[in-house]
Amino acid sequence: QGILERLDVGEIVIGDGGFVFALEKRGYVKAGPWTPEATVEHPEAVRQLHREFLRAGSNVLQTFTFYASEDKLENRGNYVAEKISCQKVNEAACDIAREVANEGDALVAGGVSQTPSYLSCKDKAEVKAAFRKQLDVFMKKNVDFLIAEYFEHVEEAVWAVEVLKESGKPVAATMCIGPEGDMHGVTPGQCAVQLVKAGASIVGVNCHFDPDTCLETVKLMKEGLQAAKLKAHLMSQPLAFHTPDCGKQGFIDLPEFPFGLEPRIVTRWDIQKYARKAYDLGIRYIGGCCGFEPYHIRAIAEELAPNRGFLPEASEKHGSWGESLSMHTKPWVRARARKEYWENLKPASGRPYCPSMSKPDGWGVTKGARELMQQKEATSEQQLKELFQKQK
Amino acid sequence: QGILERLDVGEIVIGDGGFVFALEKRGYVKAGPWTPEATVEHPEAVRQLHREFLRAGSNVLQTFTFYASEDKLENRGNYVAEKISCQKVNEAACDIAREVANEGDALVAGGVSQTPSYLSCKDKAEVKAAFRKQLDVFMKKNVDFLIAEYFEHVEEAVWAVEVLKESGKPVAATMCIGPEGDMHGVTPGQCAVQLVKAGASIVGVNCHFDPDTCLETVKLMKEGLQAAKLKAHLMSQPLAFHTPDCGKQGFIDLPEFPFGLEPRIVTRWDIQKYARKAYDLGIRYIGGCCGFEPYHIRAIAEELAPNRGFLPEASEKHGSWGESLSMHTKPWVRARARKEYWENLKPASGRPYCPSMSKPDGWGVTKGARELMQQKEATSEQQLKELFQKQK
Amino acid sequence: QGILERLDVGEIVIGDGGFVFALEKRGYVKAGPWTPEATVEHPEAVRQLHREFLRAGSNVLQTFTFYASEDKLENRGNYVAEKISCQKVNEAACDIAREVANEGDALVAGGVSQTPSYLSCKDKAEVKAAFRKQLDVFMKKNVDFLIAEYFEHVEEAVWAVEVLKESGKPVAATMCIGPEGDMHGVTPGQCAVQLVKAGASIVGVNCHFDPDTCLETVKLMKEGLQAAKLKAHLMSQPLAFHTPDCGKQGFIDLPEFPFGLEPRIVTRWDIQKYARKAYDLGIRYIGGCCGFEPYHIRAIAEELAPNRGFLPEASEKHGSWGESLSMHTKPWVRARARKEYWENLKPASGRPYCPSMSKPDGWGVTKGARELMQQKEATSEQQLKELFQKQK
Amino acid sequence: QGILERLDVGEIVIGDGGFVFALEKRGYVKAGPWTPEATVEHPEAVRQLHREFLRAGSNVLQTFTFYASEDKLENRGNYVAEKISCQKVNEAACDIAREVANEGDALVAGGVSQTPSYLSCKDKAEVKAAFRKQLDVFMKKNVDFLIAEYFEHVEEAVWAVEVLKESGKPVAATMCIGPEGDMHGVTPGQCAVQLVKAGASIVGVNCHFDPDTCLETVKLMKEGLQAAKLKAHLMSQPLAFHTPDCGKQGFIDLPEFPFGLEPRIVTRWDIQKYARKAYDLGIRYIGGCCGFEPYHIRAIAEELAPNRGFLPEASEKHGSWGESLSMHTKPWVRARARKEYWENLKPASGRPYCPSMSKPDGWGVTKGARELMQQKEATSEQQLKELFQKQK
Repeated sequence: QGILERLDVGEIVIGDGGFVFALEKRGYVKAGPWTPEATVEHPEAVRQLHREFLRAGSNVLQTFTFYASEDKLENRGNYVAEKISCQKVNEAACDIAREVANEGDALVAGGVSQTPSYLSCKDKAEVKAAFRKQLDVFMKKNVDFLIAEYFEHVEEAVWAVEVLKESGKPVAATMCIGPEGDMHGVTPGQCAVQLVKAGASIVGVNCHFDPDTCLETVKLMKEGLQAAKLKAHLMSQPLAFHTPDCGKQGFIDLPEFPFGLEPRIVTRWDIQKYARKAYDLGIRYIGGCCGFEPYHIRAIAEELAPNRGFLPEASEKHGSWGESLSMHTKPWVRARARKEYWENLKPASGRPYCPSMSKPDGWGVTKGARELMQQKEATSEQQLKELFQKQK
Repeated sequence: QGILERLDVGEIVIGDGGFVFALEKRGYVKAGPWTPEATVEHPEAVRQLHREFLRAGSNVLQTFTFYASEDKLENRGNYVAEKISCQKVNEAACDIAREVANEGDALVAGGVSQTPSYLSCKDKAEVKAAFRKQLDVFMKKNVDFLIAEYFEHVEEAVWAVEVLKESGKPVAATMCIGPEGDMHGVTPGQCAVQLVKAGASIVGVNCHFDPDTCLETVKLMKEGLQAAKLKAHLMSQPLAFHTPDCGKQGFIDLPEFPFGLEPRIVTRWDIQKYARKAYDLGIRYIGGCCGFEPYHIRAIAEELAPNRGFLPEASEKHGSWGESLSMHTKPWVRARARKEYWENLKPASGRPYCPSMSKPDGWGVTKGARELMQQKEATSEQQLKELFQKQK
Repeated sequence: QGILERLDVGEIVIGDGGFVFALEKRGYVKAGPWTPEATVEHPEAVRQLHREFLRAGSNVLQTFTFYASEDKLENRGNYVAEKISCQKVNEAACDIAREVANEGDALVAGGVSQTPSYLSCKDKAEVKAAFRKQLDVFMKKNVDFLIAEYFEHVEEAVWAVEVLKESGKPVAATMCIGPEGDMHGVTPGQCAVQLVKAGASIVGVNCHFDPDTCLETVKLMKEGLQAAKLKAHLMSQPLAFHTPDCGKQGFIDLPEFPFGLEPRIVTRWDIQKYARKAYDLGIRYIGGCCGFEPYHIRAIAEELAPNRGFLPEASEKHGSWGESLSMHTKPWVRARARKEYWENLKPASGRPYCPSMSKPDGWGVTKGARELMQQKEATSEQQLKELFQKQK
Repeated sequence: QGILERLDVGEIVIGDGGFVFALEKRGYVKAGPWTPEATVEHPEAVRQLHREFLRAGSNVLQTFTFYASEDKLENRGNYVAEKISCQKVNEAACDIAREVANEGDALVAGGVSQTPSYLSCKDKAEVKAAFRKQLDVFMKKNVDFLIAEYFEHVEEAVWAVEVLKESGKPVAATMCIGPEGDMHGVTPGQCAVQLVKAGASIVGVNCHFDPDTCLETVKLMKEGLQAAKLKAHLMSQPLAFHTPDCGKQGFIDLPEFPFGLEPRIVTRWDIQKYARKAYDLGIRYIGGCCGFEPYHIRAIAEELAPNRGFLPEASEKHGSWGESLSMHTKPWVRARARKEYWENLKPASGRPYCPSMSKPDGWGVTKGARELMQQKEATSEQQLKELFQKQK
């Protein structure tokens, strides 16, 4: 059953979690460049993470091709050994995903994401060429469908969808935006409309914001589509971090990004609430992005088990709502083996010298910078740096 | 080079992290029983975690034999399929650890931990028999040295050390206690003295408390040994959770245990401070326990790299103190690529409706319960349950 | 110099603080009814509070006639001894304010506020009659100008202004609304326009929200007036409590109202920032409401001393920005005698078991209740109670 | 009935609150010097505060003679006009307290506190002379009994008690210490014993720490007296600020002292819990110190009303446990009119960018400084300053 067949009959499709964050903690991805050369360097690590998501309930395994466009990999060339070509990275990603998908009932989705070419104002043809290069690999490896994800500018996302549609395969498109819309000020509703018109069958958001904010954004997309009398499936793959204090550009601008986000990590119970809320909103492709570990995906699958009629494999090592604690030695720990307990717990941070909220670094900066970027005038890093220093 | 040869010449030995917590999140261990049958059921998952720790800098790979005594596994027998024998679990653990250790320069340590037999007041012979059964496997598989860890009662820890010493191999012993001492009220200093007298060459603490509290406890052990004119190497393997609000029994009693601890997870920078402090205190076996992921172990190795003269393999995917961010697109994120930034950051939790500290559940309970347990009168779970309900 | 003469030449006029909260803590006002019978029962307490505000820098002493309309006092009749008539309460308030005003350079303002008659849907004539009864006293006692304050519905505020304008004296009008506007959904800008058209020479907000939120609201009023090409002086008298977590109806709905607001009390430094921000926004009548104690008013006067050329009397007991600490015994306390210190301090609450934000009680309720109230259907308390219970 | 007659028959005696903090906020006392010249400059303000405490339930009015020894006033001479002599300040304080005490059923207590002479190592005779000068006024004005309060060194407190005992009047003595004892390391138990042996009939603590910490200290005093088989009445007058993060020298060292303590202010409900706990501990002289406002004293009187059989006068403006809210307009506010609500409320600070705990400034400093001070070597401010700078 392909992705659209599943969604068309109302099935819930569970996505996977964020690879770059999970593999950074495991030692295979470098924060900053965030590139996926591990598919070639350490396939066993990538394979194992795919397996854990599959076991946790994922119905889709995304190829680990985030930031794997040639321009991005070259951009970081001083770091990734030259011998690892863009093609190799993408091919290995497809092979590993397919190998693990075959161990269960999962689809493989080839993924493209925002490019440095777009940010540095290359023209439409050049940006599209970058996507097409990745698409060639996905076609050769015959992935099941395609995802254009992590776009901050709907213009670039539309270009990506147009390229991916050339393949004839189903296309999903998600943007890393919040309720305020994309970096040019296009609202979520308008973004959704443009993406569907470009050919996307599934639209939504991924990354940059916490589950609640992402759902708010998808809701705006849904309303935009309804107003335009367009139909599409909805999808959400948020962060597994609490980010109530984010500005328009999301968690990147939080002072804790990316090495101090630990206190923000969501619990499995937060995720169960997210899954239910997403479902109630009509979203049927429900997954995660940065910060999602296998147990977060399992929490989606467990929450929606009553709707789907089955539990994921990994639930054999997990009791619903803490029930496994009923085997604990201490009676007061056994008393935690119930839904009401975990549902209502307000977990302490153990950090009495720390605040609960941060002020995003980029607030002052982004306002001016964003305006300039919208005018495509401050595209060089030098210009942004100067702007930044002036505003400090 | 054996463990003692290394420590005797002043080398720093880096331990590994906690398997039960890491594998619970990956979907292979059940919280509550916390037993390691994954060595048989899913060896690839255990192998991969060993590899990540090795790559992060661990010099010791502990066999994944936590709670793998026969009485514990039987105790949980309704849960673990009967066909997986205690012997199989322990043997598989040894094989996997050795296989990965051979990929690098690491030692394999066979580990035993507290037993249900002791808690239910079985006599010394019976408790020792449980340890001996595991030791037989460790000898057959020829591990490099032995660790008795996670003991709350020094009496049981001493019995474990006595059994392990029969092997002729070096023995390390760590207790899961805080500065207040063991559950019978034996001080950390006295615990250390008893353990060394029983034959341990390395003593210290593991689990139950955060890095600061653990170091405070090891300091008391060190002082106890000095007062008794005994010599031993020091070892510390704390939690990777902030627990300033713990009572005597540690994080088990925190209301967040074990499914709401996320906001307490320590950052890599917290770990660098811990590693330095441990080193300055004279501890040379420095590792972690529950909550430690590979990137936490890497943080120990990076902090102590100037003292050791080399970085771990996984540092090829990590810049010291955030330096890899100097490649980030946004200038204000690049501004985070320096030590002062991360050293002084007070990370927000993003949870403005949550407190910073908790009150341990067991405080009221443990006082009475502990007294009874000390008198070995409230050993049945039924008795504790009644006591608990009376006190509520 | 009358109020308008002062404002017309650009003078800064400093208001006073909130009487009901201050006198509740001193033991003379009852929370719940919040009525001002203390003017008759304990004139010395009211007089002393006026004096402290005068000494702190207030240029206006408002008669303590909050909630002193006859219908309100009667409504609370089971509580206030019948012998204290509405007239007596209002007369005594005028006498005390005038007596203290004469001790310095202050104006006396007679004040009216929202009435139970309006809430219970009495007609315009009846509501106006209530205001007129108070106005008669203000005219007899010859106050310097009039203030209509603490209105949640602009319709009622307009009626109050219309009555007060009959006197020929200058009229100021403030609403207890936030940026979302009044309870019927009229925006702050539209409220300001209606009030000025009704005859108010000074418009703004008081109570219900913290300084930042109030300034945001006054800014919207200013923009509304500009758009309508109307002129008026601006005024702000916010709470001295931090309320970032308020809903539309302000601090009343916070779970801490009114007996647990202590941790929210603003510091003198918060007020200095507020005074500067208000000034920069073009507000020239700057005072406070509930929570403001004399030292908060002094903080306004001290912040704006460079603009005004003089300090208030009470500054003889206060050094600018903590300078008086330079006389402290301990050197590390003396190190706090500087502006940078207090300006940047993030004060701890000393409450590690408490959160930093609350969820307003009335959120769920107010939505439905507000709709009903807008339709003037749920005006009886019984109806609201039922609604409340249904929504719980 | 004198103070001892009351206490001897088991009566509860309610003290008053802190004058310097309350009058600083009202504009009559300068933070830093904290001297009480307001008794001469603004007797009406002092009189009104006494009246509010009397009305709130205080059975003792302490003369406002804190820091009114001649050496302290002279020390601050550049600030207080020379014409206000020590004698005048003390006499006026006695007159005002007596005038108000006569309005109700209250005793007048003459108070002395720590002197600069002691800190600068003047000899016993000189320090005693300072106390005797104040005592002369108290005898002339015939106060009912005497209090030696706010001593950090038991040696000085003993000298004060010895002087006060010369009068033949009952003497109470309280130290501003925590469970760790006085600045020379004398334990609370030993302090109590020395004070009783010197002649104090009532002993306890005041200031510097929050209610819980003060009660812990008084408990230690009680145990010390029991061990020494001595008898005395117990007294506690804590801060009305939460200070769980204090070091040995109390709230002075907190970074928020004295101008950023607002978020720490205790609620009336905190005080009710304190009053009950103090009573249960056997303390019968229960009052407050810095931060206590009249409504806090009323909370003591209301909590203990069932034990005493009557409410204070100010309770006519207060319902027990929020009961007055039953008259509120909004149903969800009326729902707060019950004990369970306020007893369990965890009040938010509304400050999401602030931490919950602070690190005392003086921790590093005080350790060395205290040692030097104990050796009476670092008594000059110059020496301490140098020490401070060296340690920074």
